[in-house]
Amino acid sequence: MGDFNAVSEAFVNHYYNTFDTNRAGLASLYQDTSMLTFEGQQFQGATSIVEKLQSLAFDACKHTVTTRDAQPVMTGQTMSIIVFVSGTIALPNEERPLKFSQVFHLCQTAQQSWFVYNDMFRLNYA
Amino acid sequence: MGDFNAVSEAFVNHYYNTFDTNRAGLASLYQDTSMLTFEGQQFQGATSIVEKLQSLAFDACKHTVTTRDAQPVMTGQTMSIIVFVSGTIALPNEERPLKFSQVFHLCQTAQQSWFVYNDMFRLNYA
Repeated sequence: MGDFNAVSEAFVNHYYNTFDTNRAGLASLYQDTSMLTFEGQQFQGATSIVEKLQSLAFDACKHTVTTRDAQPVMTGQTMSIIVFVSGTIALPNEERPLKFSQVFHLCQTAQQSWFVYNDMFRLNYA
Repeated sequence: MGDFNAVSEAFVNHYYNTFDTNRAGLASLYQDTSMLTFEGQQFQGATSIVEKLQSLAFDACKHTVTTRDAQPVMTGQTMSIIVFVSGTIALPNEERPLKFSQVFHLCQTAQQSWFVYNDMFRLNYA
């Protein structure tokens, strides 16, 4: 169980790198049961979630993580992980990067690979 | 399971009202297994958590919730709830309120009362 921190670090690096370079590739990180709440709008399932992420008004962006916190969730012998990120998103035509916070709940499939079960995203307006 | 939103709303109101008026009373919302990550510092168990919250440098404060998102987590027939809050904290001697984000994972005890299993708090510096 001590590796929740390492899993969360690897996940966060992979997630935002994929978001910034190959957004369609995020589909493999979600399952049919996955939920996304994006600025209050709700989506369920990998297809709907990635459709939403691909429909965002910017094509190119660059996420920078400022803080990353993680905690394990033990359900019997099964561990899942809640990850809490804050950071910035730089957009091509914006002088100031946008600030955001995001929560992920990472669970394991029957094949023991990690996926995003819960995802909540908010911009932090100054 | 449709009531996760109502539970999260009632919890958030109760939590910040208790924080602002009777901080010691927060102890009843945590259990021995509960975890708090406060600005990156980790605490476990109701006693340590409330000690930390009571040791904060301000006695009086007033939380205002700006956004509250919630999602259910189904583990077999058992539901838990992840709540994601952003808001501000007004302090007596500060002109501008501080911005914060906080994540709670609410689980039920054997007696079916809700408690905070996971709690992660961050100030959002402008």
